[in-house]
Amino acid sequence: MQSNLVRFDLGIRAGLLLPMKNGTGEVRNQFFIGIKDHYIAEITPFREHYALSCDHFLDLQDQIVLPGLINAHTHLAMSLLRGFEDDLPFKEWLFDRIFPIEAELVDAHFVKVGTRLSALECIRFGTTTVNDMYFFPESTAEVLDQAGMRAIISQPFIDFVMPDEKHLGVNPIPGRAIRFKNFHQKYAGHSRIQTALAPHAPYTCGDDLLKQIVELSRELKVPVHMHVSETKGEVEESLKKYGKRPVKRLHDLGILNENFFAAHMIHVDTEEARLFANSGARVIYNPDSNLKLGSGIAPISEFRKSKILVALGTDGAASNNDLSMFGAMDLGTKLQKLSNQNNTAMVALDALNLATYEGAQALGLGSKIGSIEVGKCADLISVRMDYPHVKPLYSVLSQLVYAYQGLEVDTVICDGKILLQKGQHQTLSSETIYQDVEKIRNQIKKTSN
Amino acid sequence: MQSNLVRFDLGIRAGLLLPMKNGTGEVRNQFFIGIKDHYIAEITPFREHYALSCDHFLDLQDQIVLPGLINAHTHLAMSLLRGFEDDLPFKEWLFDRIFPIEAELVDAHFVKVGTRLSALECIRFGTTTVNDMYFFPESTAEVLDQAGMRAIISQPFIDFVMPDEKHLGVNPIPGRAIRFKNFHQKYAGHSRIQTALAPHAPYTCGDDLLKQIVELSRELKVPVHMHVSETKGEVEESLKKYGKRPVKRLHDLGILNENFFAAHMIHVDTEEARLFANSGARVIYNPDSNLKLGSGIAPISEFRKSKILVALGTDGAASNNDLSMFGAMDLGTKLQKLSNQNNTAMVALDALNLATYEGAQALGLGSKIGSIEVGKCADLISVRMDYPHVKPLYSVLSQLVYAYQGLEVDTVICDGKILLQKGQHQTLSSETIYQDVEKIRNQIKKTSN
Repeated sequence: MQSNLVRFDLGIRAGLLLPMKNGTGEVRNQFFIGIKDHYIAEITPFREHYALSCDHFLDLQDQIVLPGLINAHTHLAMSLLRGFEDDLPFKEWLFDRIFPIEAELVDAHFVKVGTRLSALECIRFGTTTVNDMYFFPESTAEVLDQAGMRAIISQPFIDFVMPDEKHLGVNPIPGRAIRFKNFHQKYAGHSRIQTALAPHAPYTCGDDLLKQIVELSRELKVPVHMHVSETKGEVEESLKKYGKRPVKRLHDLGILNENFFAAHMIHVDTEEARLFANSGARVIYNPDSNLKLGSGIAPISEFRKSKILVALGTDGAASNNDLSMFGAMDLGTKLQKLSNQNNTAMVALDALNLATYEGAQALGLGSKIGSIEVGKCADLISVRMDYPHVKPLYSVLSQLVYAYQGLEVDTVICDGKILLQKGQHQTLSSETIYQDVEKIRNQIKKTSN
Repeated sequence: MQSNLVRFDLGIRAGLLLPMKNGTGEVRNQFFIGIKDHYIAEITPFREHYALSCDHFLDLQDQIVLPGLINAHTHLAMSLLRGFEDDLPFKEWLFDRIFPIEAELVDAHFVKVGTRLSALECIRFGTTTVNDMYFFPESTAEVLDQAGMRAIISQPFIDFVMPDEKHLGVNPIPGRAIRFKNFHQKYAGHSRIQTALAPHAPYTCGDDLLKQIVELSRELKVPVHMHVSETKGEVEESLKKYGKRPVKRLHDLGILNENFFAAHMIHVDTEEARLFANSGARVIYNPDSNLKLGSGIAPISEFRKSKILVALGTDGAASNNDLSMFGAMDLGTKLQKLSNQNNTAMVALDALNLATYEGAQALGLGSKIGSIEVGKCADLISVRMDYPHVKPLYSVLSQLVYAYQGLEVDTVICDGKILLQKGQHQTLSSETIYQDVEKIRNQIKKTSN
C-alpha cells in the first residue's frame, strides 16, 4: 500500500481477484481493493491492518471478485412480458403479440415497474452497467439512477407514433428531437447515466428518420444504438425495398462510426463486415435471444479477428428469458465453437472480455469501467465459491463462464456504492416491486384475452 | 381425498403443481400430494385439514412442484475434472488430457468423492434420477444409494484395460462379465439402483467386445448405454475401418433394441435414424456438452417426429461444466429452434418432457417415475418463486425452461425421502465432501504439471 495514512470509503478483501486489466485473465490471491470517492484508489496484496483504514470493510476472502458485468443490449421494462408469448416465430412474436400489448399498455408507470423488476434481476446477477433501449427512456433513467446502476439509456425512434409519444402528445417531427435534447441535457455530466439515440431497426426506420439520427448524433456527440441484421427476412426485405443489404444501407446513410452500437449482426456478408471494421462501429452479441427466436449465430469470432469491438447482451427478458450475463457468457462462447466447428474459436477469457473489458471499450466506456484498476470507477462484484457446481477450482475463467449461473453473486458495488450484500438488495425493495409487477401482469392477461 | 382415515408418511401442499401426467403441461393450483410407503398415494385439491393426516407435512404453497428431473447421461465422478482442461478440441481433450489423468489417478476413492460431489450438485439442482457411466460403478452405486438418489449405473467396457480393472486385477475376458454379474446381482430388486452395460463408444469397442455386450444384455435383460456418433471424425473413422457408419454397424451387430440408450447421436443419416426408429432404440440428447466440445446439434426434433423416444442429459461436468438439467432444458430447446430454423421445432413443454415423462420412458422407467401420479414413486421437487428473474408468471412451462437456472430448487424428494429441504442437503454433508474434493484437486494439479 502506498501510504498508511490514506483512508478509504470502502475496502474489500478479495480471496481471488480477476481484475481483467488489459483484458488478460490474470488472477491474484488475497488482494485488497481500496475505494475512495467512487473510484478504485488502491489494489495491493491484503494485510490484516488494511481493514482498519476503511470506513466500511467487506471481507470476501472466500469469494472471487471481478469487474461488474456489462449488459450491452437490453429492453429492461420488457421483463413484464417475460414468458408472455414464447415459442413463436420472430415476426409473429414481435408484430402480432408484443407490439399490440405495448401499444395498449405501455405507459411511464409500466416502464418504471418493469425497469425496477429488471434492476433487481440485473443486480442479483452481478450486472452493474446496462445499455438499454425502450419507450419512456426518461422513466428508465429515473429508476436506474435510484437503483444505483450505470447505464446508457437510449430514446427509441421508429416510423410510427410510439406509445410514449401518444401519451406525452409528442409530435414525431420535430418533437422527438426536442424531447431527446431535453433528456440528454438532464443527464449531462451525470456520473452514471448517459443518453443515446435508438433508431429501432433498418426495417422500421426509413431513410429520412435515419438521416435525422445521424445529424442529432453528430450535434450532441451521443451514441446510436440499433438492432441490425437480426433475421434473414430483414435482409431480404431491405434488398427488395432499398436495393441493398441493411449494413450497406446504413453505411451509405453515414451512420456507421465508433459511436454506433449494432445489436445482433447475424446475417452480414463479408463486404458488410468490412464496412463495420473500417468505420470502427461496434457489435453487440445476444446469443440467448438469437437462439430463442431462431435468428441464427452472429459471426462474432470473425468480427473480432477483423478488430471489430464486441460487447455482450441478454436482449430483453421476453426473448431470453432472463438477464443473466453468466448465461450469456456461457452460451455465447459455446455457440461460437459450434458455428466455427472449432473448439478454440471462442474461449472462456473471450467471454469474460465481452462482458467486461472489451464490452466497456465497445460502448465507449473503456476509460471508466471494464476492469478493476486504480483510477477506474469502483464497479465490481463477488461470487460465492461454496456451491458443489463450482468445485473443484482449476481455472477461475472456466468456472465463471461454464459453471457459474448468476445466483452465486454475493456482493455488487457500482460507483463505489454497495447495491447487493450477501445476496440482499441494498437500494431496491423487492416486495413493493413484486406487488406492482403482479398488478401489471393481471392487466396484461386481461388485455391479451 | 378418497378417505379421511388414510394417513400419509409425507404430505405436500403445492402452490402450483405440474404433474406432467401423460406428458401434458397441465398446471393445478393449491394441490395436495400424499406419499405413503415411497409411493404417491393421493393427489387432490388442498384443504387445510389434510396437513393433520400426515406424519410429516411440507407447506410449499408459494412454490411450483414438478417431477424430479432425470439426467439421462452423465459421468458423475468426472466433476473432479470440472474446468480442468477446457476449450480444447474433442480428441485432444479426451485422449491427451482426460484419459491420462484417469489412468493415473482414478481409483475407488476418487470415484466415491467425485460421485458425492456430483450427488450434492444433482440434488441441489433438482435431479432425482441419473443414468451414469464411469469406472468403479460399484463405488458409484454405493454413494448414490447412500445419497438417496435413483440411478441406472453402468459398467464401462472398452478395448483397453481400464483404471478399475488395473486396480482390481480384473482380466478383461472373462473377468469383466463375471464382475458385471456380481454387480448386477447385488442390486437385483433394489428399489432405486439398477445396473447396465456401457460399451464406451463404437470407436473404442471392436466387434468382439460388442458381441459380448449383446449376449450379456440378453442374458441378464439389462440396458446398454453407449456414446454414439458424437463427432464427424468418429463417423469417418468407422467408414474407413468397418466400411459402414457407426449406427449401421451397431445395427448389424444386433445391439439396437428398446434396451439400447445412445448418447449424442449427432452425425446420423436418414437411414441410421430409420434403423433407430424401427428397433425402438433410445436417444439421449446432451446439448451443453455437444456445444462445448464443438460436436454439433443432434436432430432431436426429427428423431421425435419418427417416434424415437428421447431423454436429456448433461454429460459429465468436465464437458458442460455443470449438471443442471434446467440449463440442459433451456439450451436443448433453443438449439433445436436454431438447427431447424423454426421457432416451434422444440418448445418448453418438449424440454420438460425430455427431462421427466418422456425421459423416464426412454430409460425404461416410465412405469415408476417421470410424472406425479398416484401409484408412481414419490420423486418430486419444488422451486421457489420469489426471485426477480422468474417474475411475472404467465406460463409455468416457459418459466421453468427459459428462466429458472437450478439454484431456485428448494425441496427434493426421491422415493418418498426428503433429500433437500429449503435448499439444504438432508442426506449428504457438504463440508466433508468439499475437503475430500480439495485433496484430490491437489493430486490432479500435481500430476498434470
